[in-house]
Amino acid sequence: MASPDSPAPAAPTIRAATDADFPAIWAIFRQVIADGETYVYAADTTRAQARRIWTAPPASAFVAEQGGRIVGTYSLKPNQPGLGDHVANCGYMTDPQARGQGVGTALCGHSLTTARERGFAAMQFNFVVASNTRAIRLWEKHGFRVVGRSPGAFRPRAGGFADALIMHRTLK
Amino acid sequence: MASPDSPAPAAPTIRAATDADFPAIWAIFRQVIADGETYVYAADTTRAQARRIWTAPPASAFVAEQGGRIVGTYSLKPNQPGLGDHVANCGYMTDPQARGQGVGTALCGHSLTTARERGFAAMQFNFVVASNTRAIRLWEKHGFRVVGRSPGAFRPRAGGFADALIMHRTLK
Repeated sequence: MASPDSPAPAAPTIRAATDADFPAIWAIFRQVIADGETYVYAADTTRAQARRIWTAPPASAFVAEQGGRIVGTYSLKPNQPGLGDHVANCGYMTDPQARGQGVGTALCGHSLTTARERGFAAMQFNFVVASNTRAIRLWEKHGFRVVGRSPGAFRPRAGGFADALIMHRTLK
Repeated sequence: MASPDSPAPAAPTIRAATDADFPAIWAIFRQVIADGETYVYAADTTRAQARRIWTAPPASAFVAEQGGRIVGTYSLKPNQPGLGDHVANCGYMTDPQARGQGVGTALCGHSLTTARERGFAAMQFNFVVASNTRAIRLWEKHGFRVVGRSPGAFRPRAGGFADALIMHRTLK
């Protein structure tokens, strides 16, 4: 974490992930799902499952590098097969140690550009935990709006239930 | 199709599908997706893809039999992994030749019972094509309500775009 006196870190560089990046992606994935507060994947999700979820076609993974370190990742794919494959879906994870440094913003911006380049007409998130206000603010800043709400669709590890939001934006 | 003079067909019997049922399921699947009006699967979806979509764990398939013939099928699964696996998802297909005979109603009712028995707390449909008013009426009759709308998420084979609805009901 940058101290108040540190210079602001340079904007991360984002590029397509290679096989060699998976250990770093997995290190982030594991930490992000550990608290069971924001992602639906269970804390005991295995490395092999994570690899399939995040990198297996039709998904493609990207990484954000900052100071030679991988600090975030996104996974872009069609949200539906066939007659729904013009809408993209994307998941984002930032290394908890690199929070508050604009990594999420950089990842989201890059993913929207990539999705447009690949010909997607829109992007949809199917499962934004309603209590994850930091993420919701970020997606709204990037043009997403809430188009649905699944009541009680998420069981936070700490107990109880939370709604999941469906968020959407066109890419025109 | 029953003529107006035929006796009403007996209510279908619904049971878990076996491997031996897949040819009949595939015959229905193929016909249902052929027009590209209600289901997202492309018309060129292969038999192997259909089998995976409909029957591969964690999905489980059921069939409706009427007069010794399989006239419909449903596929039940968790809508999300891990911390979202308390919400079920289900897809239904009726043999086009058996429409209007209560097969969809029987399938939906059976699937709600099965989902409850398996401990699901709710059921969600992620992709009900908004122009499919027959289906929407049926789901509403079974207690589902619209909780979201994905704008232009479906490309009907005939051209243009249609919204997809997210529909939900609790199973308490």
